[in-house]
Amino acid sequence: MLNKRDQAQDSYPAGNGTPERPRITQVDNAGESARQSGNWLVRRLFDLAGQPPVAVRLWDGSEYASSRTEPVARLHIHDRRALQKLLGNPHYEFGELYSAGRIEVEGNLAEFLDVVYRHLHKVRRDGLRGRLVRLLARRQGNTEDRARQNITHHYDIGNDFYRLWLDENMVYTCAYYPHSEAGLELAQTAKLDHVCRKLRLQPGDRVAEAGCGWGALALHMARHYGVHVKAYNISREQLAFARERARAEGLDDRVEFIEDDYRAIQGEFDAFVSVGMLEHVGVDNYGALGETIDRVLAPHGRGLIHTIGRDAPGPMNEWIERRIFPGAYPPSLSEITEILEPWGLSVLDVENIRLHYARTLEHWLERYDANADRVRDMFDDTFVRAWRLYLAGSIAAFTSGALQLFQVVFNRHGSNELPWTRDYIYREPA
Amino acid sequence: MLNKRDQAQDSYPAGNGTPERPRITQVDNAGESARQSGNWLVRRLFDLAGQPPVAVRLWDGSEYASSRTEPVARLHIHDRRALQKLLGNPHYEFGELYSAGRIEVEGNLAEFLDVVYRHLHKVRRDGLRGRLVRLLARRQGNTEDRARQNITHHYDIGNDFYRLWLDENMVYTCAYYPHSEAGLELAQTAKLDHVCRKLRLQPGDRVAEAGCGWGALALHMARHYGVHVKAYNISREQLAFARERARAEGLDDRVEFIEDDYRAIQGEFDAFVSVGMLEHVGVDNYGALGETIDRVLAPHGRGLIHTIGRDAPGPMNEWIERRIFPGAYPPSLSEITEILEPWGLSVLDVENIRLHYARTLEHWLERYDANADRVRDMFDDTFVRAWRLYLAGSIAAFTSGALQLFQVVFNRHGSNELPWTRDYIYREPA
Repeated sequence: MLNKRDQAQDSYPAGNGTPERPRITQVDNAGESARQSGNWLVRRLFDLAGQPPVAVRLWDGSEYASSRTEPVARLHIHDRRALQKLLGNPHYEFGELYSAGRIEVEGNLAEFLDVVYRHLHKVRRDGLRGRLVRLLARRQGNTEDRARQNITHHYDIGNDFYRLWLDENMVYTCAYYPHSEAGLELAQTAKLDHVCRKLRLQPGDRVAEAGCGWGALALHMARHYGVHVKAYNISREQLAFARERARAEGLDDRVEFIEDDYRAIQGEFDAFVSVGMLEHVGVDNYGALGETIDRVLAPHGRGLIHTIGRDAPGPMNEWIERRIFPGAYPPSLSEITEILEPWGLSVLDVENIRLHYARTLEHWLERYDANADRVRDMFDDTFVRAWRLYLAGSIAAFTSGALQLFQVVFNRHGSNELPWTRDYIYREPA
Repeated sequence: MLNKRDQAQDSYPAGNGTPERPRITQVDNAGESARQSGNWLVRRLFDLAGQPPVAVRLWDGSEYASSRTEPVARLHIHDRRALQKLLGNPHYEFGELYSAGRIEVEGNLAEFLDVVYRHLHKVRRDGLRGRLVRLLARRQGNTEDRARQNITHHYDIGNDFYRLWLDENMVYTCAYYPHSEAGLELAQTAKLDHVCRKLRLQPGDRVAEAGCGWGALALHMARHYGVHVKAYNISREQLAFARERARAEGLDDRVEFIEDDYRAIQGEFDAFVSVGMLEHVGVDNYGALGETIDRVLAPHGRGLIHTIGRDAPGPMNEWIERRIFPGAYPPSLSEITEILEPWGLSVLDVENIRLHYARTLEHWLERYDANADRVRDMFDDTFVRAWRLYLAGSIAAFTSGALQLFQVVFNRHGSNELPWTRDYIYREPA
């Protein structure tokens, strides 16, 4: 039951004082001592977050909520120092404190983060600090050495770990669900086909793949479309797995897995494809990526880039960037054009399937949660919580629109080897 | 028969002296006097144009061609002053001289221009001047008054003139050909439906249309999708025609045609659509256009912008800009994102159908040529030639990739009222 305290609006700390701002009210029975200990700090936290409809419960049992709507979930903050840290650097400390178990979310973690992200978007959009952060956000370049360290950090955690929650083909990118109720295995295969159809692959085509993960797309293209693939990756663990699969399936004459950076691609290719690599490239290197594509793509060649993106340039979440994905940056469409426009590459088709990534992540999180004990055995509790937050936070990022998923199809300026319409993508296979 | 003159490569005037540059050879019988009169100037013209495979015949009967391939067509230059003017400012003077009949093209005009555009693209891409022009190209703003003058210049030429060569519904934008052999009438109707499907129109929806031409889309949406439309235009001639049609069809209770600028749109709308207007807006006003969309689009609203574009920012052809379309500028995709990203509008789908515009223009040119005598009666020979060049030049721009045709679908940041896949566009209507 809400126990609404009658508190004057102007006693709130400074924030975006719009007339419709809801009051943060203490809703429990903890009394005066709680108010003294956490009240002011919690109000400031709600201000920073743009007044999302969530409840906060402190270490002493006192509870707070926005007066406007029913809370979506409840954030438990287990000690005073945790609350202070959260206020000092919320985007980073939320992840740190959650991983350490010093804060917890009661209710659906992804739904909690979805409403928080939506409210943060408004704060960011309107605030000066947000604009400054956006200006500074994109300046990061990954040298080849730095790229290698970053990729090792994430992808060389161990194939056994990823096997616990990815599909059987180890596809670690957004799936494509032909119907919203499709399962993960079907949707990952459908994604591979969606990409291949968009590339209009023909038997005998030479394909360059930049950032091939565990090799699922390269093997799928060779197996089902009869093409020859040179697939590049700088994660040794992934490549060992991919090469073993190519041998086991007798595809090693048609798929060459090369341990090298995209900048090292050599040859001429009928198709260039990159699925889930651009996030690790860094905007400063988009020129180098475009130059690579321009250097290796045949005159009639087609290209596809599949990447996490944003509606507008913005900062990567600091915790994700430091703890999960060093060097990662999801670009906006204007930033993606920096790869293509200087080389006169011609955009034919852009599709945004962000809700498919939310669904993919829901499937991953379900399997991850079911295997939490095995993850704990491999690592520890902090790791289990950190990756749970990463997966749930990513669901929320895609459902709230903080992240997008773009597939961009392009060819060379003036090449008229184009499909007449996009029907061919949606026609049943012959 | 080619009479190849053995001329040293280094006697050519300065240009992009790549090793593979073909020789321009005099191919006829005009002898020494011709060489003295036009030889050097013609070689310079071929250099400026990047050595396209065309022939040039001068006033004295002397003829020149690239030695590398069979000429696509033959340019006749009827006087020496015309050649000099062409060299001084080719992008502008070609149109002026062609309109005046002082130069002519023997063979297919669109094919001639296609190869010229393709070779010019290489010169521009590689040249410093091209890069400077690109930097300076986009700085043009259309105030409301200026916009009104520009639009009047082109669209108020007279409905009777456009009726001679447009389809029966007077749709003056790129059609959508479900099959490449479809006719113009069918393709224009299919385009209207393609746009309506992408907007996922529902009966009762409120639609804002910015730049409605002769009203074909507004009337189609009201007639077949049961929506209410406010359609804005600043061309008085077009609006008079559109209002008369709405009355005649009894649709004037559902379609309101408003003589005003897109900046004046008032209300809240479930869909925002603009087909063929952005070309006239000017990059400096993209912020104002985005602000308008953000101001009038409902939270669940969808938007579509259909526009001529470019692979990269570049200058509008000076002759087209001065004689045919004052104030026009086709943007690259990076420039289009300037409308959307500052407002957090979210790009869902981009489709490039440039070859459909080439086909549309072929159909228009065919009808135009068949009605050349009637155009001459309305205007004069210069006008007939100028518009013939504009139509044929536009075919060439779309076949050579100098121009693109983008349809961009978007909605608001974080709105999850999305189609699950794009199947709905390609499914047969119920």
